[in-house]
Amino acid sequence: MYYIGMDIGGTKILGALFDEEGTIIKKSKKKTKANSGREEVFSQISKVIEELIEGVEKTEIKGIGAGLPGIIDTENGLIKFSPNLPWENYKITEEIENKFGFKMKIGNDVNVGILGEAKFGAAKGKKNVIGIFLGTGIGGGIILDGKLYTGVGGAAGEIGHINLNPDGPLCGCGAKGCLEAIASKTAMHKEIMAQLSRGRESILKEFMGDGKEILKSSWLKKGFEEKDELTMEILERSAKYLGIGVASLLNILNVDTVIFGGGVMEELKDELMPKVIQSAKAYTMPAIFKDCEFKIAELGDDAGIYGALSLVMGENE
Amino acid sequence: MYYIGMDIGGTKILGALFDEEGTIIKKSKKKTKANSGREEVFSQISKVIEELIEGVEKTEIKGIGAGLPGIIDTENGLIKFSPNLPWENYKITEEIENKFGFKMKIGNDVNVGILGEAKFGAAKGKKNVIGIFLGTGIGGGIILDGKLYTGVGGAAGEIGHINLNPDGPLCGCGAKGCLEAIASKTAMHKEIMAQLSRGRESILKEFMGDGKEILKSSWLKKGFEEKDELTMEILERSAKYLGIGVASLLNILNVDTVIFGGGVMEELKDELMPKVIQSAKAYTMPAIFKDCEFKIAELGDDAGIYGALSLVMGENE
Repeated sequence: MYYIGMDIGGTKILGALFDEEGTIIKKSKKKTKANSGREEVFSQISKVIEELIEGVEKTEIKGIGAGLPGIIDTENGLIKFSPNLPWENYKITEEIENKFGFKMKIGNDVNVGILGEAKFGAAKGKKNVIGIFLGTGIGGGIILDGKLYTGVGGAAGEIGHINLNPDGPLCGCGAKGCLEAIASKTAMHKEIMAQLSRGRESILKEFMGDGKEILKSSWLKKGFEEKDELTMEILERSAKYLGIGVASLLNILNVDTVIFGGGVMEELKDELMPKVIQSAKAYTMPAIFKDCEFKIAELGDDAGIYGALSLVMGENE
Repeated sequence: MYYIGMDIGGTKILGALFDEEGTIIKKSKKKTKANSGREEVFSQISKVIEELIEGVEKTEIKGIGAGLPGIIDTENGLIKFSPNLPWENYKITEEIENKFGFKMKIGNDVNVGILGEAKFGAAKGKKNVIGIFLGTGIGGGIILDGKLYTGVGGAAGEIGHINLNPDGPLCGCGAKGCLEAIASKTAMHKEIMAQLSRGRESILKEFMGDGKEILKSSWLKKGFEEKDELTMEILERSAKYLGIGVASLLNILNVDTVIFGGGVMEELKDELMPKVIQSAKAYTMPAIFKDCEFKIAELGDDAGIYGALSLVMGENE
């Protein structure tokens, strides 16, 4: 018997055929073509599934799991709202079941990725896990008692929108001073451009150019290696606030593991992690801090498909 | 058949005998005598139990639930640490069972009070509930999927230690800028004294005197009624930050109900609640905000005994 795990993003669709032990038998990847409309996206998803099940009897497929961006109602198999896919209040699970006869379970992509890390990756065997992904934005997910916690409306785990300074910079969500508005790559980009425009010298100046291209983690890495003052400041600030956000989460949820992932964190883990942990320690109640281990995500781009596998295998129950 | 619910505080012990429908049959209250040592406190607890079970067969008592201050390990029935009771790593449940033959379940008093509100009070029938108690400090508790969430070490729900300003006032926990250090009655007291010492005029001046007696909610009420400028400012500030703390909690946990309680909130609910909700709205993601109802605690001093009843009745499962 087999399972299918999928990571359906706004740019690409990644799928894998797993055996019952969670070993990847086959992978498939296609462009999402999100701008070509709903039918095209559904057709791309179908193609990935068709490639994966080639040579396998349909009756041997026990189900499909998938992570998708946006607010996903896992219980009802509904895409409520997605910023990157052309669907709203769409029961994709029903369509897939009609077309292929497979039962399908879906969840928010970031949440599902963290579920993957909790079941097959950095926090394997851990019960209470917070995942934080530092990239263009700051995403997160919460596993409590071994289960993905999604809240009453499927929107829990918006870790990027913990408030750290009510008079701070404006966030994309409309509020001021969210963690994401202070510590994400987008926030770093803005702060660097602001500093450069004030005449600050930095090796980032050449990389950033007119600022139209978003800051790359590799530029920060370079800046760090060259001991560039502005880079150091920017990384310090981001790590400090990320640690404070983690502290608030720990004081609220007293978990055993925090996993860090995302582009910036994976590129700069050696530089960022000690600073994040130091800051978290300073703002977490000691008895709660000592209960917690800090880990770096291990599954990379495969976190989503492993999480999707966990969803459909019922490892989320 | 009957249950006993107890609220064991640093000052007093409140107990009630409940029937199986959750009706209070009898109540008993004694001083804790926390300064007289462990044996005396245990003896006071025993006296409350003895009064409650007078005239009832021991075999008719199905169990005892109790809320106690500090870090409580519910699973193992252990008082890990208590700031107000003379015990550390003490298995009170075993002692009670040895003495009376009743099985006992314990939990942190604030958590247990919120469980009471969630099962018998303001959030009856609700599944995902955050409770926030505004008093000398700021305490809280979290009910997820109908169950008290206590975290891996029993210390979850430290809502007063959400960080709202890493460079803010020093908190009792050692960190800077915790919600409790900004918005609790103790924080208000400090801010009022600081303002008065700078020569600020206020009707609070007479009440506060030399500042040795902690600010009373009734003084704030008086100040509000008299439209005293300093009182207004202090309440505005506390409500604003409390709302921002609530926003972070909602963005993380996407619950259906937030219950507010505690001395200050109960005395000043009409003044504070609209401001707290307005502030929460400004900092919560809209889709998450609309999922949530805001309530005032209904059970008053009985929240703890009702929560203790829920604990032992297994309503926490």
